[in-house]
Amino acid sequence: MIAKSQTRWTDDARTVLRVGEGFRLADVDPNATPGYDGDKVSGKLDLKSGLEQLAEYQERLYAASRGGTATDAVLLVLQAMDSAGKGGVVRHVVGGVDPQGIELAAFKAPTEEELSHDFLWRIEKRLPGAGLIGVFDRSHYEDVLIGRVRRLAEPAEIERRYDAIAEFEQRVADSGTRILKVMLHISPEEQGRRLMERLDRPDKHWKYNPGDVDERAHWDEYQEAYQVALTRTSTDQAPWFVVPANRKWYARLAVQELLLEVLEDIDPQWPAADFDVEGEKARLRATL
Amino acid sequence: MIAKSQTRWTDDARTVLRVGEGFRLADVDPNATPGYDGDKVSGKLDLKSGLEQLAEYQERLYAASRGGTATDAVLLVLQAMDSAGKGGVVRHVVGGVDPQGIELAAFKAPTEEELSHDFLWRIEKRLPGAGLIGVFDRSHYEDVLIGRVRRLAEPAEIERRYDAIAEFEQRVADSGTRILKVMLHISPEEQGRRLMERLDRPDKHWKYNPGDVDERAHWDEYQEAYQVALTRTSTDQAPWFVVPANRKWYARLAVQELLLEVLEDIDPQWPAADFDVEGEKARLRATL
Repeated sequence: MIAKSQTRWTDDARTVLRVGEGFRLADVDPNATPGYDGDKVSGKLDLKSGLEQLAEYQERLYAASRGGTATDAVLLVLQAMDSAGKGGVVRHVVGGVDPQGIELAAFKAPTEEELSHDFLWRIEKRLPGAGLIGVFDRSHYEDVLIGRVRRLAEPAEIERRYDAIAEFEQRVADSGTRILKVMLHISPEEQGRRLMERLDRPDKHWKYNPGDVDERAHWDEYQEAYQVALTRTSTDQAPWFVVPANRKWYARLAVQELLLEVLEDIDPQWPAADFDVEGEKARLRATL
Repeated sequence: MIAKSQTRWTDDARTVLRVGEGFRLADVDPNATPGYDGDKVSGKLDLKSGLEQLAEYQERLYAASRGGTATDAVLLVLQAMDSAGKGGVVRHVVGGVDPQGIELAAFKAPTEEELSHDFLWRIEKRLPGAGLIGVFDRSHYEDVLIGRVRRLAEPAEIERRYDAIAEFEQRVADSGTRILKVMLHISPEEQGRRLMERLDRPDKHWKYNPGDVDERAHWDEYQEAYQVALTRTSTDQAPWFVVPANRKWYARLAVQELLLEVLEDIDPQWPAADFDVEGEKARLRATL
């Protein structure tokens, strides 16, 4: 295991953020910083030292699948209301590790071809291979979130999807992929401030979409759709974590910590050489 | 244009590294640091400040294609002998920008399906879309490098490929993608040292492949294959640059500088809002 640097985490992030028995999204305070006894300044320092550990774990994970026979992979699923900070997590948490070890997939509104298949068809194709850390920026959960709120499918079909997701994720987990599902949770007030900032800054205009304001009218329905999805699909093999995200520094730190805890569990090892090291040294020396 | 920070570059990297008229690979000193009047210490500082500029250019490039109508993209093609530092460039140069703006493709030995198509079939599929920076870790050039040295195809077929590549790259360039082809150039002695280091360190064993030593016996043939490929396919729309790479710090800095110069040419702008900013502010305010 890689030595953990001293941080201000007082609890296992997976314990305090986990969606378990009796979970109620409405009870989660988007301003809170559960499990972490520090402020923005210490949070940024801890994020920085965590990046080095994450980078080493990622390299080991990759090496174990290449040189060795390990089939471990990690899949981080990110879901959130608009402007909650998915992009920042990708950039500041995922962006700190070697891009060669990352498989990033951003799921937008499905294309016509994608719509002609089952909703999991396009997801399956983007699952990370062994040794990789896959990151889904939005995911198959859109099909039970916006799908439910905007009635993009019949209620019976939405209903079918929860079980289909659970079975799909079970299979993915059985094949060696640790699934980590994260909802970044902001308040509607915070979203309002962030959207206003996008409108105030010409270099942020391209991130603004007039549809974002329309969606705000459905805030409560989205929260309800999340409540159902989170509680129906948070399983041991593919647990949900709700990360309070009004404070960006905490959200990034918490996602990093969740990833570190999962990688610590896997504890990937440098694979042993499958060739004769001394013999190769002699062969190489003969060419020098 | 983004203000350039003060660096120790004395010349345009694209001028001093360009494969042009009368180029001879054998004349390039892998230890040199052309165009840069600094050492490892200043080189690392300049790399760091360059990362910030690269990150901002990347975001603008992306924004211009999303919010606007720009079709610009960048394609960085990396070729080199084993252990020359492609991975380090990907990690330390490309890894500094938002992963959402990068399309990384590593081309290994072709699969059976890929072999059943023209050699450019698998390449076409991985070209970067508008707004993205594509990075090829190896590329279609393998088909005229190892393909030529190891006689994986008939001489007439190899011959055909040079022209096919030039036409292919012309089309890609015409569609709005700036192509930047880089050969990282190391000496056989430096490769020997690096391979020995992999053998000396158990955490590097997984990067070592006994085949690497076998390939060293063909060093001169590879250099010859590079000489032909570089001079036959270095065009104005898809120029080759040979980057001396015995000094890792220089190679990374030079690739970053080449990218910065290309992005400076594109000079991507934040797109203007395609909505009524004041009207949207009023709509948003009504939801607060």
